[in-house]
Amino acid sequence: MKITKSSMSPFLCFSFFFVLQFPLISFSKTTLAGARFPSSLITPEKVSASAQNKLYRTKYFTQILDHFNFYPKSYETFQQRYLISDTFWGGAKNNAPIFVYTGNEGNIEWFAQNVGFLYETAPHFKALVVFIEHRFYGKSIPYGGKKSVAYSNATTLGHLSSTQALADYASLIIDLKKNLSATDSPVVVFGGSYGGMLAAWFRLKYPHVTIGALASSSPILNFENITSPYSFRNIVTQDFKSVSENCYKVIKGSWEQIENTANQPGGLELLRKSFKLCKNSVEYLEDWLSTAYAYTAMTDYPTPSNFLSPLPAFPVKKMCAAIDDPATGNDTFAKLYGAANVYYNYSGTVTCFDLDNNSDPHDLGGWFWQACTEMIMPTSGSNKDSIFPASNWDYKDQASVCKSRFGIEPRPLWVTTEFGGHDIERVLKRYGSNIIFFNGLRDPWSGGGVLKNISNSIVAIVAKEGAHHVDLMFKSSEDPEWLKDVRKQEIKIIAKWISQYYHDLAQLF
Amino acid sequence: MKITKSSMSPFLCFSFFFVLQFPLISFSKTTLAGARFPSSLITPEKVSASAQNKLYRTKYFTQILDHFNFYPKSYETFQQRYLISDTFWGGAKNNAPIFVYTGNEGNIEWFAQNVGFLYETAPHFKALVVFIEHRFYGKSIPYGGKKSVAYSNATTLGHLSSTQALADYASLIIDLKKNLSATDSPVVVFGGSYGGMLAAWFRLKYPHVTIGALASSSPILNFENITSPYSFRNIVTQDFKSVSENCYKVIKGSWEQIENTANQPGGLELLRKSFKLCKNSVEYLEDWLSTAYAYTAMTDYPTPSNFLSPLPAFPVKKMCAAIDDPATGNDTFAKLYGAANVYYNYSGTVTCFDLDNNSDPHDLGGWFWQACTEMIMPTSGSNKDSIFPASNWDYKDQASVCKSRFGIEPRPLWVTTEFGGHDIERVLKRYGSNIIFFNGLRDPWSGGGVLKNISNSIVAIVAKEGAHHVDLMFKSSEDPEWLKDVRKQEIKIIAKWISQYYHDLAQLF
Repeated sequence: MKITKSSMSPFLCFSFFFVLQFPLISFSKTTLAGARFPSSLITPEKVSASAQNKLYRTKYFTQILDHFNFYPKSYETFQQRYLISDTFWGGAKNNAPIFVYTGNEGNIEWFAQNVGFLYETAPHFKALVVFIEHRFYGKSIPYGGKKSVAYSNATTLGHLSSTQALADYASLIIDLKKNLSATDSPVVVFGGSYGGMLAAWFRLKYPHVTIGALASSSPILNFENITSPYSFRNIVTQDFKSVSENCYKVIKGSWEQIENTANQPGGLELLRKSFKLCKNSVEYLEDWLSTAYAYTAMTDYPTPSNFLSPLPAFPVKKMCAAIDDPATGNDTFAKLYGAANVYYNYSGTVTCFDLDNNSDPHDLGGWFWQACTEMIMPTSGSNKDSIFPASNWDYKDQASVCKSRFGIEPRPLWVTTEFGGHDIERVLKRYGSNIIFFNGLRDPWSGGGVLKNISNSIVAIVAKEGAHHVDLMFKSSEDPEWLKDVRKQEIKIIAKWISQYYHDLAQLF
Repeated sequence: MKITKSSMSPFLCFSFFFVLQFPLISFSKTTLAGARFPSSLITPEKVSASAQNKLYRTKYFTQILDHFNFYPKSYETFQQRYLISDTFWGGAKNNAPIFVYTGNEGNIEWFAQNVGFLYETAPHFKALVVFIEHRFYGKSIPYGGKKSVAYSNATTLGHLSSTQALADYASLIIDLKKNLSATDSPVVVFGGSYGGMLAAWFRLKYPHVTIGALASSSPILNFENITSPYSFRNIVTQDFKSVSENCYKVIKGSWEQIENTANQPGGLELLRKSFKLCKNSVEYLEDWLSTAYAYTAMTDYPTPSNFLSPLPAFPVKKMCAAIDDPATGNDTFAKLYGAANVYYNYSGTVTCFDLDNNSDPHDLGGWFWQACTEMIMPTSGSNKDSIFPASNWDYKDQASVCKSRFGIEPRPLWVTTEFGGHDIERVLKRYGSNIIFFNGLRDPWSGGGVLKNISNSIVAIVAKEGAHHVDLMFKSSEDPEWLKDVRKQEIKIIAKWISQYYHDLAQLF
């Protein structure tokens, strides 16, 4: 029996998701039997994050189903959720700023509870803070809010797209400003990961709605043939290699050993026992391990975190410490088990790992559709030095999975047609303004990001030690200097946008 | 019987079109019984224009029905027509430029035969010239090219929208460049009227596809409450007033006289005879006259022209000469008849005017739909000094006509949500680049145009004596100096864009 990712199991979702593309944010189908967030990981900042729940009010906006067409069905509406916090707002009379988070592929509350940057900078700017949920996620579901209907087939899912989401944000922001009598308040948009892509694209497409965008870890170049499909896994590989050459070698060599074991009599049972898997779940072992390595690399934060899963500071180091642990001698499976525990069981409460579990706590399932239509982001290439088994990225594989899953073809050229990407330095050198692209180079997605300044006001901030949108997360007293510096730079630039805006506004009256 | 525009006749199309909004380009439902273009009006330049037919080849591109959604039907395709002329092209190897006309609401051949600017500047720039037809017009009809199906109801018409058209242009241009191995050739877009709006918006939304736009007579500000609904008719009024105060007074006073006559016994017959109307067509007399005044103002060119209808140079002057003609004494109807003849019968071949005729020689009918969905451009306000009967623009009237015609509501806020317009000077002061907004101040649409420079590279060229996109028309030996100057300025600016592009391109290699 082959228990590799390329086996294209009938559990298409997981298999597809991993084989073809890492989700931008975590979507571990492998949830933890009995796992709880350990209270020891909730830092004072995290408590404050939870307290923020009380800061924002939940509101709904009646949004149109299809902005770009006018057939009768396009006029259908749905309730789009947004979260609003006016604790620090300077008010409409003062044209005080509005900070908008352009929601990602998930429940907006999850982001609102993790993205501290907006709340924490709001007092300085006297800003209103708004988190808008992306259509088809969380509670912002068309078709009467019924997810079972909205997700039932390609016809209903058809209106889940990035361009519709951007038009949603424009419509909602314009209406909200009108209602608040704040039409002259400058709007700054923020986003991380796919939300960062949306923030950057929103500034490019809707400069009349936002004065600038902080696009954190937004791989807007991970399309078509702009970024190598090997980039993502190369960076994961480097992350582990840079911590421990031995760790890298053990993981790299483990795949063959797992295969060999699986093919021996009693091998599957041995694997099950070695990794404390629940019944009937060995099939996805390799995917499960790969996911742990990749997401740990993405969230290799310098402080304890609880975004994708509860993790210690520098979790890649912790994983490698488990691999390199002399106590496990030559027992590769014990080493891998130790590593997997860092990602899946840092709380230590899991009794067995259920790899068949398909729960989706952050409501990220719509990304399957997006990755099958427009978000064709090649990331699954592994070359011979990769920590993952060698593999090529092949568009045809993805297309065939999508065809069989949804009955439709992806449109791999669409994102670059609509948003650009090729020769971005030339295109934006004399066009557009006011975008910050942040990237942390330990983040596997950073290979698809903008890593160089393009113009005076379209700038790249790159943190060598940074991981996936670390700048947006809640502050911690343990934050390293480089991270404090990144945030300072961002605040300084945003302050400049706002002051320029007020200057221009004053000139017109 | 009341024979005014506000009577909302059952011939909804015409009535709606005129009452609520002048089409950007002419759409006179009143065609000429027996009229022919007189050969005396075909200048040498016009002959050259006709000869251009041979210059371009007609090609088709397989275009997707719906770019922004992914439901199965969105994948349907249609054949989009484009006209291509490579006579002067410097070729892909030299990265020679591509000049693209972003097609308006009509048959693209009509534009390709009137817009001389692209052909006439192509030799200087060694440019490839491409005219792309707008979806749902001419031969670029979805639903298997069957207009009867595509135009049958709101469901099929639903995909006729400006955003889809812009995405069509982006997709076609990118594919064409690939096929020509000319991915590094700079693309400049051109358009007049609605086509000019599309050109400007295309530069704003697709800066990665075009390096700059010449947007001629593009009233991108004639939306929401940005431009006064009285602006359009005020300018028509000024056009006539500036030529002859008496002419203005006669026309202004004529409406009451027409009404009074119509209400007298035998009055309709008298009107029919006075205006040489064919049988049963007196009902639209006032619309017919208003159309003549408005379109003559729009095309008040300094040389004979044959765009909307065959016209002499300075046709407003010619109209007023007929009104002011002492030979007609106090006979107002004879004066108006003389004026109408300038617009409708300059050839002198019409035997009777058929006001019921609904033919649409330039295939402009799709504009009804666009004016009922997104192109809500208030133009029908007439104040007490107007040359037209006093009237207000009321969104509710338009909405009610659209509801009854198509069963749908307009979306009057959509264009400014998607493309902006409010505070355009502030928004674009520090954003975007390389747009020329040309306006002629005799053009009633100029009130909705950009008339001031916004930045160093988003500039306004304003010609006091100019009419609707006169700069784009074929050159004539009789062109006045100001018009030659306008074109020189445009060419100089475009040359700068192109040279900057080559400079940037060279830096990257």
